[in-house]
Amino acid sequence: MFNQVDVPTDRSELEKLLVAAYGAADPVELDGVGGATPTTSKAAVVSASPEPGVDVDYLFAQVGIGTGSVEWTSNCGNCATGVALYAAAKGMVPIAGDRTRVVMRNTNTGTVLEGLVDTTGGVVQHFGRQTVPGTRAGGVAVGLTFRDPAGGTTGLLFPTGESAQELRVDAAEPTRVSMVDAGAPVVLVDAIHAGRTGAESPERLRADVPWLRAVRHAAAPLMGLLQPGQEPGDAVPKAGLAGPPVAYTTTLGERVAAEDYDVSVRMLTMNAPHPAIGLTSAVAVAAAGLAADSVVSRAASGRAGEWLRLGTPAGVVAVRCSDVREGLPRRVTVQRAARLLADARIYVPDTGAPRAA
Amino acid sequence: MFNQVDVPTDRSELEKLLVAAYGAADPVELDGVGGATPTTSKAAVVSASPEPGVDVDYLFAQVGIGTGSVEWTSNCGNCATGVALYAAAKGMVPIAGDRTRVVMRNTNTGTVLEGLVDTTGGVVQHFGRQTVPGTRAGGVAVGLTFRDPAGGTTGLLFPTGESAQELRVDAAEPTRVSMVDAGAPVVLVDAIHAGRTGAESPERLRADVPWLRAVRHAAAPLMGLLQPGQEPGDAVPKAGLAGPPVAYTTTLGERVAAEDYDVSVRMLTMNAPHPAIGLTSAVAVAAAGLAADSVVSRAASGRAGEWLRLGTPAGVVAVRCSDVREGLPRRVTVQRAARLLADARIYVPDTGAPRAA
Repeated sequence: MFNQVDVPTDRSELEKLLVAAYGAADPVELDGVGGATPTTSKAAVVSASPEPGVDVDYLFAQVGIGTGSVEWTSNCGNCATGVALYAAAKGMVPIAGDRTRVVMRNTNTGTVLEGLVDTTGGVVQHFGRQTVPGTRAGGVAVGLTFRDPAGGTTGLLFPTGESAQELRVDAAEPTRVSMVDAGAPVVLVDAIHAGRTGAESPERLRADVPWLRAVRHAAAPLMGLLQPGQEPGDAVPKAGLAGPPVAYTTTLGERVAAEDYDVSVRMLTMNAPHPAIGLTSAVAVAAAGLAADSVVSRAASGRAGEWLRLGTPAGVVAVRCSDVREGLPRRVTVQRAARLLADARIYVPDTGAPRAA
Repeated sequence: MFNQVDVPTDRSELEKLLVAAYGAADPVELDGVGGATPTTSKAAVVSASPEPGVDVDYLFAQVGIGTGSVEWTSNCGNCATGVALYAAAKGMVPIAGDRTRVVMRNTNTGTVLEGLVDTTGGVVQHFGRQTVPGTRAGGVAVGLTFRDPAGGTTGLLFPTGESAQELRVDAAEPTRVSMVDAGAPVVLVDAIHAGRTGAESPERLRADVPWLRAVRHAAAPLMGLLQPGQEPGDAVPKAGLAGPPVAYTTTLGERVAAEDYDVSVRMLTMNAPHPAIGLTSAVAVAAAGLAADSVVSRAASGRAGEWLRLGTPAGVVAVRCSDVREGLPRRVTVQRAARLLADARIYVPDTGAPRAA
């Protein structure tokens, strides 16, 4: 997290600074703080927003490892979670009792998100017990809310006009799917209908990657995601399985009982099993759960309460749809956690001057 | 690098602090600054030394990823390089003209090292152009000198009494080796004699790991490295090939001409090809080069000048033996580089208080 007041506003100057600070010209990022993984070679530049109703703007940067360049077109839900805590901790928003609301605009995409940050007792928390799947470490609870996520790409929550339908994939029997656009365009396969469980291990799911890729390619044109003449790619729609809850063991070795969650979800990230679930995919699954006939609702069998609990390989993610009007959620909230690890001044070779981060 | 004044002196309290700061209880170190690799999950705690003639003491910690514990018995040449720059940059030693000498004692092992830090113009440098193999990034030049490294483990530079000899390994023809103890115990195989080049790629060397492991096991008892009844292990002696210089391409894709260096070296780290060479192994190779008949001298064929230049998979490492008395180097210097990446205050969950690093 960088404060905009500490770094250049000019995009190319900022790019140079980030590449130098992260050591990203070098494939091992030895000469910087990037950590040499895509997950850690990210940055958000945060500033007070001039937009009415928005507290802070943030520009998300995916710093290319070894490329010496920055990708500016995407968003990152985990970064948004961090931005909310950062804005509270650095005094960029007024602390309001036990929960502090931070309205954030991602300036890459224009998306507006809300973070509800645990500020118990009206003070900034540096530590907390809220966990997220994939790590046993606790952090400060941040409820991350997507506003009006339905139809962001295609204009419709269900771009085909149906909440579930049969999809012909290759020469095989038709597969029952829901094609959803909320947070991101996603095609969800009814796992039981397809002879799976939706609770497959990542190793087991790997064998189904070619098939799920074919599902994605079959769904893309029906969802209106292809320009005329364009071949289906591997980024959209996101693809995965949904099934009923069953007892399973997470990749961290923790047992999860069937009653601990409402629906099993196994997603791909590009063409590999996702270790948990992307936040935008979680939004899509929850939004699909609003329609009684969707593959999500059939898998959950009416178990879901206020929060829909998704069983992912790394653990359970809870998602809440609220302010639902005509079947469309105006707000979808995912429970997340964040923590300030360190305040640092980075020595950046190109300029010779230390920078705050 | 931690300043001792900022962290507990009690070893178990320090261990708890480092594990918490690095997030090391978790296998992905998500909740800390460890970076989830053995190379980055290291720490040095630096203090002014009470020992006459020593400027700073440093305690080296290898923080176990996912184990929640710290290994305290080893040393780390790269950390020593960093300690030298840190001591100069943080005002722990007087800056003395263009080169500032820092005498450091590793309190894990008692080893005393000297760092000669580039302080051109009598000021601390934050950036520099000195490179080390494995990265294209430049740093501040630090000459790292090992004092009296010969015989540190066995009492003798050549523990068998011979600078080179035939070693019978399994049922094959005897192999020509030098068994050396300087910096660390090392067995070096004459690559040409063994039908190799000494300039093998890491992939090619991988096929020779079982053989080099057998060489290590055959050498260990002759070097006096085994207690009675003890089986040879895979840590000592370190094992590798030495051969004449030939043109090759580094793992970073840079061409190296035969005239750019003096001897080809390919080492194992445990039972895998080392990506470059460990500093203590570099010391052993250079010390072996002082004996005219060693496999190093035969490979170098009298090419070496003041500095012996070792061709490693990642690039060339220069080592200098000086103050040589009766064939033993009193000083062995390796040219290294270091850079201050950041000054940080780490928020540590266990204590709730920020710590400086």
